[in-house]
Amino acid sequence: MKKVVYSLLLILCLTPIVLLAQQPSQKGATPSISQETQACLDCHKTYTPGIVEDWLRSLHAKTTPAAALKKPELRRRMSAQKVPSSLEKVVVGCYECHALNPKTHKDNFDHMGFQINVIVSPQDCSTCHPVEAKQYSGSKKAHAAGNLLKNPVFNLLVETILSKKIVENGKIGQKPSSDFTRQETCFSCHGTEVKVTGTETIQTAMGGVDVPKLTNWPNQGVGRINPDGSMGACSSCHPRHQFSIEVARKPYTCGQCHLDPDVPAWNVYKESKHGNIYFSNDQKWNFNAVPWRIGKDFQTPTCAVCHNSLITTPDGKVVAERTHDFGSRLWVRLFGLIYSHPQPKHGDTSVIKNKDGLPLPTTFTGEPALEGLIDEKEQKKRKQSMSKVCTQCHATSWTNLHFAKLDHTILEVDQMSLASTQLLLEAWKHNLAEGLPQGQNPFDEGIEQMWIRQWLFYANSVKYASAMTGAPDYATFKNGWWNLTENLQHMKDWIEFKKKK
Amino acid sequence: MKKVVYSLLLILCLTPIVLLAQQPSQKGATPSISQETQACLDCHKTYTPGIVEDWLRSLHAKTTPAAALKKPELRRRMSAQKVPSSLEKVVVGCYECHALNPKTHKDNFDHMGFQINVIVSPQDCSTCHPVEAKQYSGSKKAHAAGNLLKNPVFNLLVETILSKKIVENGKIGQKPSSDFTRQETCFSCHGTEVKVTGTETIQTAMGGVDVPKLTNWPNQGVGRINPDGSMGACSSCHPRHQFSIEVARKPYTCGQCHLDPDVPAWNVYKESKHGNIYFSNDQKWNFNAVPWRIGKDFQTPTCAVCHNSLITTPDGKVVAERTHDFGSRLWVRLFGLIYSHPQPKHGDTSVIKNKDGLPLPTTFTGEPALEGLIDEKEQKKRKQSMSKVCTQCHATSWTNLHFAKLDHTILEVDQMSLASTQLLLEAWKHNLAEGLPQGQNPFDEGIEQMWIRQWLFYANSVKYASAMTGAPDYATFKNGWWNLTENLQHMKDWIEFKKKK
Amino acid sequence: MKKVVYSLLLILCLTPIVLLAQQPSQKGATPSISQETQACLDCHKTYTPGIVEDWLRSLHAKTTPAAALKKPELRRRMSAQKVPSSLEKVVVGCYECHALNPKTHKDNFDHMGFQINVIVSPQDCSTCHPVEAKQYSGSKKAHAAGNLLKNPVFNLLVETILSKKIVENGKIGQKPSSDFTRQETCFSCHGTEVKVTGTETIQTAMGGVDVPKLTNWPNQGVGRINPDGSMGACSSCHPRHQFSIEVARKPYTCGQCHLDPDVPAWNVYKESKHGNIYFSNDQKWNFNAVPWRIGKDFQTPTCAVCHNSLITTPDGKVVAERTHDFGSRLWVRLFGLIYSHPQPKHGDTSVIKNKDGLPLPTTFTGEPALEGLIDEKEQKKRKQSMSKVCTQCHATSWTNLHFAKLDHTILEVDQMSLASTQLLLEAWKHNLAEGLPQGQNPFDEGIEQMWIRQWLFYANSVKYASAMTGAPDYATFKNGWWNLTENLQHMKDWIEFKKKK
Repeated sequence: MKKVVYSLLLILCLTPIVLLAQQPSQKGATPSISQETQACLDCHKTYTPGIVEDWLRSLHAKTTPAAALKKPELRRRMSAQKVPSSLEKVVVGCYECHALNPKTHKDNFDHMGFQINVIVSPQDCSTCHPVEAKQYSGSKKAHAAGNLLKNPVFNLLVETILSKKIVENGKIGQKPSSDFTRQETCFSCHGTEVKVTGTETIQTAMGGVDVPKLTNWPNQGVGRINPDGSMGACSSCHPRHQFSIEVARKPYTCGQCHLDPDVPAWNVYKESKHGNIYFSNDQKWNFNAVPWRIGKDFQTPTCAVCHNSLITTPDGKVVAERTHDFGSRLWVRLFGLIYSHPQPKHGDTSVIKNKDGLPLPTTFTGEPALEGLIDEKEQKKRKQSMSKVCTQCHATSWTNLHFAKLDHTILEVDQMSLASTQLLLEAWKHNLAEGLPQGQNPFDEGIEQMWIRQWLFYANSVKYASAMTGAPDYATFKNGWWNLTENLQHMKDWIEFKKKK
Repeated sequence: MKKVVYSLLLILCLTPIVLLAQQPSQKGATPSISQETQACLDCHKTYTPGIVEDWLRSLHAKTTPAAALKKPELRRRMSAQKVPSSLEKVVVGCYECHALNPKTHKDNFDHMGFQINVIVSPQDCSTCHPVEAKQYSGSKKAHAAGNLLKNPVFNLLVETILSKKIVENGKIGQKPSSDFTRQETCFSCHGTEVKVTGTETIQTAMGGVDVPKLTNWPNQGVGRINPDGSMGACSSCHPRHQFSIEVARKPYTCGQCHLDPDVPAWNVYKESKHGNIYFSNDQKWNFNAVPWRIGKDFQTPTCAVCHNSLITTPDGKVVAERTHDFGSRLWVRLFGLIYSHPQPKHGDTSVIKNKDGLPLPTTFTGEPALEGLIDEKEQKKRKQSMSKVCTQCHATSWTNLHFAKLDHTILEVDQMSLASTQLLLEAWKHNLAEGLPQGQNPFDEGIEQMWIRQWLFYANSVKYASAMTGAPDYATFKNGWWNLTENLQHMKDWIEFKKKK
Repeated sequence: MKKVVYSLLLILCLTPIVLLAQQPSQKGATPSISQETQACLDCHKTYTPGIVEDWLRSLHAKTTPAAALKKPELRRRMSAQKVPSSLEKVVVGCYECHALNPKTHKDNFDHMGFQINVIVSPQDCSTCHPVEAKQYSGSKKAHAAGNLLKNPVFNLLVETILSKKIVENGKIGQKPSSDFTRQETCFSCHGTEVKVTGTETIQTAMGGVDVPKLTNWPNQGVGRINPDGSMGACSSCHPRHQFSIEVARKPYTCGQCHLDPDVPAWNVYKESKHGNIYFSNDQKWNFNAVPWRIGKDFQTPTCAVCHNSLITTPDGKVVAERTHDFGSRLWVRLFGLIYSHPQPKHGDTSVIKNKDGLPLPTTFTGEPALEGLIDEKEQKKRKQSMSKVCTQCHATSWTNLHFAKLDHTILEVDQMSLASTQLLLEAWKHNLAEGLPQGQNPFDEGIEQMWIRQWLFYANSVKYASAMTGAPDYATFKNGWWNLTENLQHMKDWIEFKKKK
């Protein structure tokens, strides 16, 4: 009975959208829209017009895989050499993406007579973009959820922060954190595990509609675990339904998760010379060009320039290959857990073990867990590939000195973290706080929180400021050296006050 | 004698401005400028050219009320059905606004032979925009000054923060806060009471000029109490003299007052997916279109989309009506005083009384003062009207889950505020601090300040991040759960240190 | 042998760049490129294409000094009346700038047969821009490095913050700060001393190249001490190689160094009404116009409007002269060291001595060191020149009241700093901390750090918010009055906890 109603609705709104969808195509023949996608558009034009308009602006609505495959390789955005013939000659519409691989999709459901997946996963996108999906699947981003969840140390830190606190008789107790809170804090960026727990009928503008019931949804975290088992969300950076390369290349996108106080990349960029030039001139650049030409299309790096875009010289020589393994041009992991260290070999960092048997890339006193980390040769190779980007505008000696400074800063700031670890050990030794020696939570007391600030906020702030050629305030007064110094003094004062009778 | 000089000056600079003012009109007959406005322009072109240029760019300079009234209703920016005939056929110039209602304006004065008001008030704007003025007059914004000043609890908090501190013999004493400091802190956003205390002669580029002497001026706070008795300042959001709908719709405007740490709406927006798309694409949008069409004119919400603009689908069906009662699409008041609660029934919140007789929307332990707050039916209605905006781009299930998460977060975070209240009560009970039980100021001691941080900064940060689908760092490390947890521990440490002999 | 290789390379890549460089010139004859610059371009097009593209976009690439000298004075960007004849009829290319004054340049070296300076200094720029270089040389900016280094009090503060901390037996020790850390913190903005210590061979894409070995490089700090002895870096604000007036006029440039928490000018601007209008409308303005016309070219101040650009009315009357002595329109120095005071007479502030013989512009209790500071007459003159900019848009009474409020705020906030000084003196008196009375470092203990926060962060925040007509949160909750009040209480609590046995 429902289906009859839907068919009627479908017919009612069929005609005008065809014209609409054809508008964007300006030269030559209009690309075809599949019948199924046309059916989607006919209703969704009325019920969710915002995303239909978005899609109409996308390249997906304006070209077909067959046409895309004819482009010269350097200008191509598709990495598949071939796509299933049913997809070849139609634009990439609703149905082409939301109906792929129905058998592996636990979120597949009957929607107006079509078998639709709620979530389009990297596995689905790999139909046309297999190289990107493959690169991504090996990255720390794809494993971002598991890297928190499967690591008992990180998990304890998360739980200490997010657990519900209860005060009774002046004591602070903890109750387990809730899924909702986890979903909108750490796992908002890291990604949640989206599971299908059944079906429910929801009331919409069209009346009751049966849909899959999803846990930890909505979520667009980079390491989302999807109902088809794949990891990641391409929409983290290419938001629906424009799937724009322009948006992904603008630093606002990266800035949603890579920001102060723990990963202040975006904040440092904003206050750097590169950021200054970006904000002053960006409206004159071409953020849609593939390949992306230094000087012609852009005139200062954004995040994407250094970390993942396909970059060429003005006359088309490749400077850096496109990659969707975002750490693959990086040799050192600045982000101190607890100290900087060479980049992990694999995206799944939960398998790393330090000498003390803890799942950390260094010991509490800074010794790296070398077998899980890339070796010196690989570090050197990556540093060279990054330096090649720098030297398109900067002299080699400038670039060398910049990275020499970074190397030194990492050592010096890690030394500041070590100094704070020594004060923490002192507090534990005298039972002023209860941590590892007492077999207790090392993250929940006053001095432990100060210690976390030292390496998670202040040390990272100085390191990111150093790495990105700028933002002296993030190295100085704004979560920088001022705070490293002041916080160490706070730790000492805390110990002194605690010792009083 | 002065008037003779002014008349001469007037004649001297009369001619060129006429041409200037007529420039913007491109099609058909030039709209007329009134003789009086022409006189204003002739001098002010020389003395304050910046605002003359601004006005020339405004719609006010390019159209007449008579022409505006001919527009189809959905495209109309005027809500009056009729205006006084003297205003009908001239553009909306200096004199048309600054000479209205002279009898109610205590700031009216003789200026070069004209009777001019210094301040144009919402009462004056209501000549052409009565619906907007009416809606605004009932809003919390219009009552923003009184809501602080007439509430003894809030007033005490304001005074505790702003009072001048004197140190004598190691003790901190307080002297009353100054008008200037009040004007540029709390009341810069909330609005000051502008009174006329006489007349003064000031030296200008033209020589001595007699003008009204105003208190607490300049100020553009949303709840300004004007010399004509009206409340508000349209220029808070439509800055003089372009009175631009574009500026008001851009989030920078709201962001002047709705920002961290107490009301972090702007900061959360900047770091959300909506903000990311806004900053990446805004230069391609049409911020001047009335009505404002989803997908066509804009592609992601700004503050105005969700809270007050007239929004339609691409083909012109109304999704949300325009409102200048900015809370009218809101059901819950996130901003914790001390806990979240249903929105107040009236813009004047100073009349609310909780069970303990205090002028607060909840008790210290969270019980809402229901009779002053909207009921469940009204809450549901408002939630539906907001959800309707969301569902133009998002699935109904997505939208429902988003708001279910928000409901849960409010409860959970308020529980964190309650836990900190319990520690405060503990400190008061043991006379470690002196607050309500001692009949003393509950806002001025160390642990009391920590308690304020908990509900005014950190709880709000998590709630706003939750409400606006994004900004996980504001829910986590940046005034979020990290701080809720850490600050609770600080309170406990403070109590412990204070108890030592 | 090397030279032969270079000559071959040079010939290989000679042809195409000529066409490239000529592209930008659109009307009439192409400006000539010198033979030397052509040689630079021919190789650097391949090795550093980014900066070649940048330069091609610059005015330097599109005009010659001879042509520039023909412009009417108000529209001229060059202040020299005449340039050496060798420079007159060629565009301002690589060689024209990097080969000037070789004898004074210790960083001059043989590069592919040309004698090249690594660094182009203000002394070199003064060939065409002597007035700007002269003004700059007398400013606090030019002396920014020395003003820290030559002042033992400031130097001690810098060293206390940046020194490496070592924890031994629960005690915190200090080791001297490193050059690298100094370079990327305080001296990143203030400027480093760049010295030539020899020559080194570096490996580049072209093979081994001999270059001067520089200390404290790279650096673009405003007070950089250059290898030719001059002070400053024009590239601080006019970044290489576009040397754009547009970038320098946009507030992102000033915002790199003038930002929170110590100098929150940029942050305050962003949250002010002026900032709101700037961000909403800037894409419609003309940032390249010389002179810069109020209302026509821009519609609200940026930093440059108030502090240094040549500003005229729409019809070309000068409102403010261009200046590159950036403090010259300022009468009061808000930035409290430790209290606000009249602007210093000279850019070199290290020569100022207060009554206690310390090199500070005030005593610890606020008395100004008058002989080093401008007198009342000069203060009045500067206030009038700034007010003239304000009154192009604002009424005289508005402007007067704005500055009256600022005057009052300075006094009141300095009083808050004084209250915190009194608590510090109390702590020193009772030997709870060791500072001046004990002949010890006044900057390294807990209560001393709180005292620094009071005047360096919180007092400045309120003062800047007051001065720039906005950003009420910087005057209230965000490093403002809330923090002034709370921090004073922290100091009192610290004293109390310290006194316990």
